[in-house]
Amino acid sequence: MSSSALERPLTVVLLGGGTVGSSVARLLLGNARDIEERVGAPVHLQSVAVRDVDRARPGVPAELLTADAASAAASGADIVVELIGGIEPARTLILSAMAAGSSVVTANKALLAADGATLYEAAARYGVDLYFEAAVAGAIPLLRPLRESLAGDKVTAVLGIVNGTTNYILTRMDEEGADYAQVLADAQALGYAEADPTADVEGFDAAAKAAILAELAFHTRVTLDDVHCEGISHVTADDIRAAQQMGFVIKLLAVAERNDRGVIVRVHPAMLPRDHPLASVRGAFNAVFVEAESAGEVMFYGRGAGGDPTASAVLGDLVTAARNRVSGGRGPGESTYSNLPVLPVGDAITRYYVNLAVADKPGVLASIATAFSDNDVSIQVVRQDGHGDEASLVVRTHLATDADLQRTVQQLKELDTVRQVLGVMRVEGEAGE
Amino acid sequence: MSSSALERPLTVVLLGGGTVGSSVARLLLGNARDIEERVGAPVHLQSVAVRDVDRARPGVPAELLTADAASAAASGADIVVELIGGIEPARTLILSAMAAGSSVVTANKALLAADGATLYEAAARYGVDLYFEAAVAGAIPLLRPLRESLAGDKVTAVLGIVNGTTNYILTRMDEEGADYAQVLADAQALGYAEADPTADVEGFDAAAKAAILAELAFHTRVTLDDVHCEGISHVTADDIRAAQQMGFVIKLLAVAERNDRGVIVRVHPAMLPRDHPLASVRGAFNAVFVEAESAGEVMFYGRGAGGDPTASAVLGDLVTAARNRVSGGRGPGESTYSNLPVLPVGDAITRYYVNLAVADKPGVLASIATAFSDNDVSIQVVRQDGHGDEASLVVRTHLATDADLQRTVQQLKELDTVRQVLGVMRVEGEAGE
Repeated sequence: MSSSALERPLTVVLLGGGTVGSSVARLLLGNARDIEERVGAPVHLQSVAVRDVDRARPGVPAELLTADAASAAASGADIVVELIGGIEPARTLILSAMAAGSSVVTANKALLAADGATLYEAAARYGVDLYFEAAVAGAIPLLRPLRESLAGDKVTAVLGIVNGTTNYILTRMDEEGADYAQVLADAQALGYAEADPTADVEGFDAAAKAAILAELAFHTRVTLDDVHCEGISHVTADDIRAAQQMGFVIKLLAVAERNDRGVIVRVHPAMLPRDHPLASVRGAFNAVFVEAESAGEVMFYGRGAGGDPTASAVLGDLVTAARNRVSGGRGPGESTYSNLPVLPVGDAITRYYVNLAVADKPGVLASIATAFSDNDVSIQVVRQDGHGDEASLVVRTHLATDADLQRTVQQLKELDTVRQVLGVMRVEGEAGE
Repeated sequence: MSSSALERPLTVVLLGGGTVGSSVARLLLGNARDIEERVGAPVHLQSVAVRDVDRARPGVPAELLTADAASAAASGADIVVELIGGIEPARTLILSAMAAGSSVVTANKALLAADGATLYEAAARYGVDLYFEAAVAGAIPLLRPLRESLAGDKVTAVLGIVNGTTNYILTRMDEEGADYAQVLADAQALGYAEADPTADVEGFDAAAKAAILAELAFHTRVTLDDVHCEGISHVTADDIRAAQQMGFVIKLLAVAERNDRGVIVRVHPAMLPRDHPLASVRGAFNAVFVEAESAGEVMFYGRGAGGDPTASAVLGDLVTAARNRVSGGRGPGESTYSNLPVLPVGDAITRYYVNLAVADKPGVLASIATAFSDNDVSIQVVRQDGHGDEASLVVRTHLATDADLQRTVQQLKELDTVRQVLGVMRVEGEAGE
């Protein structure tokens, strides 16, 4: 980039001085020479807005700290990096930064999932960049490939493992045959799960990321409210065992899919064949699997969280936004031009696993098969195990709509021959039909 | 991008009308409305330069065909897409397109590996874009993440499975226990390998991609001549079996690594632990695994070849270059500012597997252990199998330099107790020491 005309330093303001913010500041100061080469101009950290200016932050010079986030955001710096999180005041700060002509880098998944379109529109209106690679799957370069590398293709589906806590729990349940509650307690003790794990284990964190992924992949407006969300707290050791017996592994998946009529976005535990590329994503790792018409299957894998990986993603965005300033342009903006309707989850078409505790008497299988066929759900495999009070029946279906399957389960619950519905789970990632 | 000022159509010239070229033309014409939305202006295919204008190309209007590639390249179109391949006339055409102010998209790995820096410099000099996502690992969005998303980070190593033919052969050898020659013949019959498979099986194709990856990852000049290259034609069913017994799988790896003194770029078969993310990349799929200081481990996976996947990558580049035109800027260029020395492969540090046919008598292990220790190579595991004329010894080492290992192997060959060195292979992707 030595041919660049712009020789003045570029200015950067950080909003937020937590783990990621401090890490970004340190990398920015520590790698200044490399960053200058890559940007084509020096990058100057102007200020870091924090709540408590008196707290020491290793590697961040105290004289850069300010408590006045509003003034810092509106200072007209070349780039404003928002790492405060949450809806407000983050949204107001970002919009005032854009209005002052600053490009914005953010890791704020909550805000993007709630109101991304407002930010995209503001970025277009003010002619500034908005980058947010760190908002989904931490350090994995994912959003930019989705919006740039696949820009000439048509994405049909996105399947992601985008929450490290639940993947850690499910991986340990799979490896140890342990119960959910037991592994969760252990994960909390080790710091892999929060004291209040609700946002992770109930799928809300994954749902926010699913909304962002769907919006980028399909160029249409999707918010958190559009996402059907089920967590992993009902996954049992029995489900894990049944999955293993069938050659599957259970993952919390974020699924965004597009059909002729619109898009469906959902987060729920699902069974995946063990030879699916997502099946080997273990522990706290994240991965996102993309199906596109021409590109075929593409997967991105890496660390989904942590200060340094997230800081790496923020810094990548920052360097790109800075290069755009130097070259006098702006990167590709987001758009929601497709205006596709968001369809109810009942329209989703997948295979299912159903595990039933049944009476041990003749005619059981016939009555159960009838419940499936009454609702247009075709059975692929059925296996009977045990006898007496231990008798159970595991069914795997062919492709069916979620609505038809829910009706089937309702009908199964009312049968005399079914003592209990032990487990129902979607099966994803199987080829063909 | 509706806020864009530029309303004139953008013009595109295609050089080359083979499988990929025809596929790009069809996607460009067929997805015109989506592409216009994503670019912010209509994109108009102006001409397609081909050798034979009389050959029908389904989906490509005959009136767009021209035999005059030189005039088409120099026509000053907004974007020139080079899909001819090879060094010349491709390089001359690309340089004349840039001189005429056109941004260039190419899939030409041979040219980039031989003389990428000339193209990067010309792009910077003329202020145009140069994109080449399709040159490495087909449809996998990889080069852009390397040069943009990780731009604020420091990449330390890149490990890639970047040749589908060899991965297909090694996967079948692993699954079937079959011999190399037998699987190669089968792969040729099925069209997965060329009649002359040299470029694939001897690693030359992978070496060109390794040079491009190293140049991007380390911001330094690396050409094909800098790459140490070994193919898979010497991999035996015995090696595969030995790998399986140790929990490893054999892959042809492209490795680019950076240490304090410079970079090393090498292509060779290597053993990988079966739980390594690259180990599950089977058949004709490609994947590239990147290690960066802050981001940690990141992997990109997808189809490495084929007309449609490659066309998807070309079109993604084309859309990005077109958007840059509309926004009045240019994307980040390449640079080789680091000027790192390329070190000889003897300096590479890895673990090794060594398989020896040995004499079945006392003192064998002692003499062999001495050969290793004489050359500062530390043994991690040793296993003796069989007896009499079947006696063999499998050694796995701790980390050692390639030079020390080569000297060890030389010394082993001269021992009375060693009847034959059956196999020597690097072991990659193991954690720790």
